[in-house]
Amino acid sequence: MVTDLSKFMDAVHEKSPLVHHITNYVTVNDCANICICSGGSPIMTDEMKDVVDISRIAGAVVLNMGTLNERTVESMQMAGSVAKKNGVPVVFDAVGAGATSYRNLVADRIIMDVKPEVLKGNAGEISFLAGVAGGVKGVDSTSTAENIGDLVLGLAKKYGCVVVATGKKDYISDGKDLYVLSNGSDYQGTVSGTGCMLSSVIGAYVGASGADLFAVIAAITAFNVAAEHAELECKGPGSFKVSLLDCLYNLKSSDMEKEAKIKKV
Amino acid sequence: MVTDLSKFMDAVHEKSPLVHHITNYVTVNDCANICICSGGSPIMTDEMKDVVDISRIAGAVVLNMGTLNERTVESMQMAGSVAKKNGVPVVFDAVGAGATSYRNLVADRIIMDVKPEVLKGNAGEISFLAGVAGGVKGVDSTSTAENIGDLVLGLAKKYGCVVVATGKKDYISDGKDLYVLSNGSDYQGTVSGTGCMLSSVIGAYVGASGADLFAVIAAITAFNVAAEHAELECKGPGSFKVSLLDCLYNLKSSDMEKEAKIKKV
Amino acid sequence: MVTDLSKFMDAVHEKSPLVHHITNYVTVNDCANICICSGGSPIMTDEMKDVVDISRIAGAVVLNMGTLNERTVESMQMAGSVAKKNGVPVVFDAVGAGATSYRNLVADRIIMDVKPEVLKGNAGEISFLAGVAGGVKGVDSTSTAENIGDLVLGLAKKYGCVVVATGKKDYISDGKDLYVLSNGSDYQGTVSGTGCMLSSVIGAYVGASGADLFAVIAAITAFNVAAEHAELECKGPGSFKVSLLDCLYNLKSSDMEKEAKIKKV
Repeated sequence: MVTDLSKFMDAVHEKSPLVHHITNYVTVNDCANICICSGGSPIMTDEMKDVVDISRIAGAVVLNMGTLNERTVESMQMAGSVAKKNGVPVVFDAVGAGATSYRNLVADRIIMDVKPEVLKGNAGEISFLAGVAGGVKGVDSTSTAENIGDLVLGLAKKYGCVVVATGKKDYISDGKDLYVLSNGSDYQGTVSGTGCMLSSVIGAYVGASGADLFAVIAAITAFNVAAEHAELECKGPGSFKVSLLDCLYNLKSSDMEKEAKIKKV
Repeated sequence: MVTDLSKFMDAVHEKSPLVHHITNYVTVNDCANICICSGGSPIMTDEMKDVVDISRIAGAVVLNMGTLNERTVESMQMAGSVAKKNGVPVVFDAVGAGATSYRNLVADRIIMDVKPEVLKGNAGEISFLAGVAGGVKGVDSTSTAENIGDLVLGLAKKYGCVVVATGKKDYISDGKDLYVLSNGSDYQGTVSGTGCMLSSVIGAYVGASGADLFAVIAAITAFNVAAEHAELECKGPGSFKVSLLDCLYNLKSSDMEKEAKIKKV
Repeated sequence: MVTDLSKFMDAVHEKSPLVHHITNYVTVNDCANICICSGGSPIMTDEMKDVVDISRIAGAVVLNMGTLNERTVESMQMAGSVAKKNGVPVVFDAVGAGATSYRNLVADRIIMDVKPEVLKGNAGEISFLAGVAGGVKGVDSTSTAENIGDLVLGLAKKYGCVVVATGKKDYISDGKDLYVLSNGSDYQGTVSGTGCMLSSVIGAYVGASGADLFAVIAAITAFNVAAEHAELECKGPGSFKVSLLDCLYNLKSSDMEKEAKIKKV
């Protein structure tokens, strides 16, 4: 075991942090529900007039560019700015970075202006952000970059934040250490928005414990261990998503620790 | 038994009223589906150019400020205005009242301008609207107001409409009588949007029978009895929501009456 | 058997075509997930600045006017225009045509300007587009047009595209031949957005094989056979939708062909 992961899960359940989401309209309902199942308290609003009041009091802010538009991008920047001024950690999920020039522009702006505490994407998105071409098809990764771990470590160093690249294995670094996480289920690739959902869980964990590398590792591990449990109960992608919510809700921190597959590389 | 609740459920199934929703993008799909499961016929549109044509012919209009923006607030006001001119009852779910100054402003404007036939919120939101500070964390209630019943009665008198405050127990008044409803499941608190879903069911009931106090009581009771049935079948929040839809769809009006826990106070 | 339907399903699984959706916020999550379950790769974006980059590289574009607004209508027109210039087939789901004058205007504009390869609606919507009054209540069809087959054939001739009218039986024509498809489950009418979901599956099929009449017939048949399987497993509308995703994901092309009910009329 790399560290005591249980305490991060326990902290979420104890504090039930408010997680302010500005996210896409495709997977937003699943994000709200998985956030609750992880122990957090989600609120979704992208209206500029709401954002100041909410980001300020939130435990964490999750920005997800799954379905952008100019109005919500402005709200994201404002939410990020308010969060930073108030010491609220920001999780940025760079959905579709590399897929369109507009998304590239927005991702760049949020990373530079907001300076998120956690930067997350699939392997293709993270590869793109690290300056490696190709590897993105729409919002799905086709990256098979052998060196994804190096890219994650490099980006984390460059931006001084926690960087996560998801995939069959998940790579995570705070710029000093690099970990590879091997829990999860193939069914995650058959449900739209499992990446977004993970960001919401990360939001809950950093909302409770701050943007600690191990808080993020605990969030990913909880989510992916729950996915392994859900796989055992499901008949396909529809019932997998339902079970994923159930299994994360029912997951005990002791089981999460016992089943965790975490390796320092 | 306080009254013959079955006839309200039967009326929904017989008339299948069109329920026009201007609601949030987080829980809108669940609202549409629960509306169908209750016997109603949902339509969701927030485009101003659609609103006049739809609100006019609807059986009821449901306004829900879960995710506001300026465009949809204007549409809500128009929908409310058109509904009133055409004798269509309006249900207003004041999601997040008390959480941000913008929401407070909008809630006030809709209550004053539209004069909804049914005003609904969780205990925290209703407390706020009744002028009692505190009790709201994001969109979730933390109110433990002992006197929530009095607040509901007072608001109902003040605005001359049916007022509902949801929680472990639900309080409802038309300004004359006050009832406390005790059906429901703790799982309702683990699913995002069960409050929104209830508003859609209320929309179907008042769409069929008008904004009668007992039509609203029947809607709440049907929903909460279905939740009790769903609790028996589920393994967690994910499967609870699925079962809630199934159980409301399969609920018989005779069972709803038999299992109803309604008390005049 | 009217033709070899298996090859169309196999093509989707082999190519996993990118399906660009500009669709409504009510059923968008189900559209994304059913698209994946059919073998496609969905991407949802309605931001004008994204649209050019995405529609150009998509296998198919699905336009669905379930929840219109002026911003997304412009994006739909742009997406359609880009798709046509790049030989990408367009599926247009005319949700709510006949329900409001704004929707009628938009439907007309998209049909005339974009010239979709596949035009789809329920019987009421298609009747309206064919110039037959009545038959629409909100977004649900109440059409009982005896001659819906003739209307479909006539529209397909007029616009030189594949036209589909869904209902208890589905009618489909390319302007030369008319087929009636009889698979499906009554539960489809109890879930919001099964029509939208079908459009996403059609998008995946024409994305893999082009807008061939039999590619569309295969898509509808796969979806409706999966619905028949789901009906056997479900307890109500909630679990039906979950099972529909599972069953389409698990459907074998050989079973689809064996159980297909397709008749040339």
